[in-house]
Amino acid sequence: MNSTARQPSCIVIGAGAVGVIAAYSLSRAHKCTVSLVVRSDYDHVMKQGYQIDSCDYGFIQCWKPNHVYQSAVDAASSKIFFDYIIVTVKNIPDGPVQDRISEIVRPIVDSNRNLSQRRLTNILLIQNGIDIEKEVLNNFEETKYNLSLLSGVQMIASTKIGPGNVQQSGRDSISIGAFNCEDHRAVSSAHEFVSIYQNEGCNYVDYDPNVRYTRWRKLLYNATISTTTTLAGLDALRCIEFGQDQKGTEVYILRPAMKEIIAIAASEGIYLGDDQIEHFLKVARKLIYKPSMCVDFEKGRLMELEVILGHPIRIAQSNEIQTPTLMVLYHLLTLLQAKVKESKGLIGLEGCPPILVENSLN
Amino acid sequence: MNSTARQPSCIVIGAGAVGVIAAYSLSRAHKCTVSLVVRSDYDHVMKQGYQIDSCDYGFIQCWKPNHVYQSAVDAASSKIFFDYIIVTVKNIPDGPVQDRISEIVRPIVDSNRNLSQRRLTNILLIQNGIDIEKEVLNNFEETKYNLSLLSGVQMIASTKIGPGNVQQSGRDSISIGAFNCEDHRAVSSAHEFVSIYQNEGCNYVDYDPNVRYTRWRKLLYNATISTTTTLAGLDALRCIEFGQDQKGTEVYILRPAMKEIIAIAASEGIYLGDDQIEHFLKVARKLIYKPSMCVDFEKGRLMELEVILGHPIRIAQSNEIQTPTLMVLYHLLTLLQAKVKESKGLIGLEGCPPILVENSLN
Repeated sequence: MNSTARQPSCIVIGAGAVGVIAAYSLSRAHKCTVSLVVRSDYDHVMKQGYQIDSCDYGFIQCWKPNHVYQSAVDAASSKIFFDYIIVTVKNIPDGPVQDRISEIVRPIVDSNRNLSQRRLTNILLIQNGIDIEKEVLNNFEETKYNLSLLSGVQMIASTKIGPGNVQQSGRDSISIGAFNCEDHRAVSSAHEFVSIYQNEGCNYVDYDPNVRYTRWRKLLYNATISTTTTLAGLDALRCIEFGQDQKGTEVYILRPAMKEIIAIAASEGIYLGDDQIEHFLKVARKLIYKPSMCVDFEKGRLMELEVILGHPIRIAQSNEIQTPTLMVLYHLLTLLQAKVKESKGLIGLEGCPPILVENSLN
Repeated sequence: MNSTARQPSCIVIGAGAVGVIAAYSLSRAHKCTVSLVVRSDYDHVMKQGYQIDSCDYGFIQCWKPNHVYQSAVDAASSKIFFDYIIVTVKNIPDGPVQDRISEIVRPIVDSNRNLSQRRLTNILLIQNGIDIEKEVLNNFEETKYNLSLLSGVQMIASTKIGPGNVQQSGRDSISIGAFNCEDHRAVSSAHEFVSIYQNEGCNYVDYDPNVRYTRWRKLLYNATISTTTTLAGLDALRCIEFGQDQKGTEVYILRPAMKEIIAIAASEGIYLGDDQIEHFLKVARKLIYKPSMCVDFEKGRLMELEVILGHPIRIAQSNEIQTPTLMVLYHLLTLLQAKVKESKGLIGLEGCPPILVENSLN
């Protein structure tokens, strides 16, 4: 907690299934004020608030955070200093420029700086992937903006089932830490955030002293099982069960891909045990489950491909680690991502023959 | 040509876009009698015949072959001895048993044997893939049934656009040879077939002295470009253009996969030059084109996965050739194939948890 009596002020950017639960968790613990940036559901939420059906918190109706804004720009004009900017949107560095994390937080970071050059602005990224903090650091000088960057790695099953309506079916379990564990102010903020987010007996919140380990560990699942389900268009259990002799997927895709992730992590000093492979394969077999990357693609949304697979592969290349399996997955998924981009008018073929031929034998 | 005055009798099984053009080509050359097994369009064809819009033959209306049968069983009951059984259906050894090639030709092979034990029954497989003759040979004793197995490798762009309506937009170019080039009777039949199929100035028909080379060469395209387009759900040109920096697909999927095919072929004494890689990449860049495997998957049909990729991979395994790229493509496509199989009720999950969870962050 802050040493002063003043409660910290938090703003959650991204009112999807994850963001709403984050905002509610903070609000319920009564240790901070909570603002939420709500884009598409704004009118609905202003009128009726949220309906949340949560395995952690029960059935909640007409809930509203302290402040609701339609955009980060609106929030910035409120003249509130936000101690924690909590980002729960998808991280798509290859998407439209305005959706990059630095652009998303910019209005509030700027407004914070205008309001106080002494107070610390904590940016907490509750997102998948590795090296996600770099895009923010590349776009804001840390000292000039008095920033501290926090990492949130979350396991949760939560779905937005309608406007202002969120269903959480899997417990919220989140690790919070400083991206740079030598940044003592960030470490201190991470500890504070754990305390303001915690709802005893409901959610699981841990301080994470080794963020990079935790992110690599989660990648072991996301870079291999999530990617395979996306290419197959099948849940994780079917991907395993429907392999050749019920083991082709595991033996020829998942295990080799996981070993490659372990090798990349090891090349930068992060050691994941082989037992983690067994753990995640067991998780995948446990229930019929479509990871978010698969769901995103099926719903025509851009995927978190770069932070989940592109960044690890680039680390592998600079550390000269061979990743033949991940390479094929990545370059195939690049094509699925391109398909989504083309459907959104973000890319297109130029100067190419316009004839589509369908052949019956070739 | 046969030494007797009698014209050979041909039956085409599979009245898809390829089969109809094959039957028409034979019919137009007037050197054999032509029967066609027509399953779904039977009533339409009996009433109105075929409409064919062909780049090779022009616009044809109300065309019928000499005989039209609704099934191979019906054809067998006609008491005609068929010198050439021409199979143009897809080859899906992992599909329903009744759709295997040996089962498809069985009624006619049996009936031929009852009609004459001296006359040769030629089975011509106009199909993709490698080792496709083995399933037939495993199910019929060659000498007992007096069989000769012929191979047809075809390049054609032809589509069935409605009942009894075929549009051929790419020239028919076909290589005919004996699967076993030491089987002199098959070699002789292949030569005869070339002569009865040829329509001077219209189609391209060649006698193929090295069937296995030709099949491996075509696999260079089908096992790599066709498979990639299927996984991406994009035409070949987009697959290349939409890769990372417009070269990721080519550098990390297509070229490695093609090199693996070349290595497998070499392991059994078939030498494909590296210039073939450049040739097929050029073909892929030339026009916006979805290969049949991609079209089959998109239309919910089973794919020729085993003959195109499964068989080559099994050859690689027994010859100890490493195929890391093809392995990932094959085991991913196995999942797409399983998806089609499940949709047709051919396979399913058994005794598994029935809950589908969609997660927003995992």
